[in-house]
Amino acid sequence: MPKGQPTAVPEDGLTTRQRRNRPLVCVHTGIGKGKSTAAFGMALRAWNQGWPIGVFQFVKSAKWKVGEENALRVLGASGEGGTVDWHKMGEGWSWIQRDADVSNEEKAREGWEQVKRDLAAETYKLYVLDEFAYPLHWGWVDVDEVIAVLRDRPGTQHVVITGRNAPEKLVEFADLVTDMTKVKHPMDAGQKGQRGIEW
Amino acid sequence: MPKGQPTAVPEDGLTTRQRRNRPLVCVHTGIGKGKSTAAFGMALRAWNQGWPIGVFQFVKSAKWKVGEENALRVLGASGEGGTVDWHKMGEGWSWIQRDADVSNEEKAREGWEQVKRDLAAETYKLYVLDEFAYPLHWGWVDVDEVIAVLRDRPGTQHVVITGRNAPEKLVEFADLVTDMTKVKHPMDAGQKGQRGIEW
Repeated sequence: MPKGQPTAVPEDGLTTRQRRNRPLVCVHTGIGKGKSTAAFGMALRAWNQGWPIGVFQFVKSAKWKVGEENALRVLGASGEGGTVDWHKMGEGWSWIQRDADVSNEEKAREGWEQVKRDLAAETYKLYVLDEFAYPLHWGWVDVDEVIAVLRDRPGTQHVVITGRNAPEKLVEFADLVTDMTKVKHPMDAGQKGQRGIEW
Repeated sequence: MPKGQPTAVPEDGLTTRQRRNRPLVCVHTGIGKGKSTAAFGMALRAWNQGWPIGVFQFVKSAKWKVGEENALRVLGASGEGGTVDWHKMGEGWSWIQRDADVSNEEKAREGWEQVKRDLAAETYKLYVLDEFAYPLHWGWVDVDEVIAVLRDRPGTQHVVITGRNAPEKLVEFADLVTDMTKVKHPMDAGQKGQRGIEW
């Protein structure tokens, strides 16, 4: 079971408290299940700490992950923990006023521009950039710029990025990287996705 | 991005609807982060479907995962989705009346006995058996019995089991298995666990 103990003490001149509160960049990648699911699970802990949470869903479908969205909306509105803002690329980011004929590539870049603005303003304490690895992998958003912006972000803002094929540079830069490795999946045996499990 | 399409159609004589509603046993194992976190993320989808959810936490510490617990309790009490019962081994399972000097091995077995009773009664639609892989790995609970009980469970009851070192027999039996593979963890660089991230 996790012990919460570091395996090495770095010679960085920081106190334990400073190291304890260091903001993290986490990446959930790999072809297995659980990348986004674990990111939304992290949001439960952040919510319990009373943190403002920003979810940016870099996916085409507006219906995708409606279960997680409804749950986090109810939590955010409960008045007991932190707040939750849920932004969806699939229905056109809410802060954009324009025609619908914008490419997914442009939408992805618009999403990243908003993340940059929120990081600069320290709007949230946890950012879930769901499926953001895809626009990075495809070159729609420049990974070098993303790393530079994340490296220089002010305050204590944690960022989790999900999606297959996270660029190697991002993996090298991130603090915590988990590869969700598929051992077995019911679709391999002909099982279709089902309500309550896949969505 | 996931397409929800099976890669093969089995010759099992079942209709698509029958296959769609087949109950699953999921295992999240491996040494990386996200095993339990993804299981609690799955609970968000189940909650959104209005399902009764039973969490059985097979860990020693009663304080562990308090963020997820608080969030799921608020969701369960919100009246909008499903219900959530959260059972903790760490403070002595709530259904047991007895002295505190019971070994963890006995507690783990008592937890499994309650899971068996609930499966027989179809109490829940999703069971999160958190860290249950440990008592199986250590031989405290017999893996052959667990597999037999899960195989014969009535109705449509989904079960997710988390923890390192899931026994090979369980992996073979399960429908969906993900190995959370550690690529990089901040504790390797001397970072301590921090509030809102680790708990």
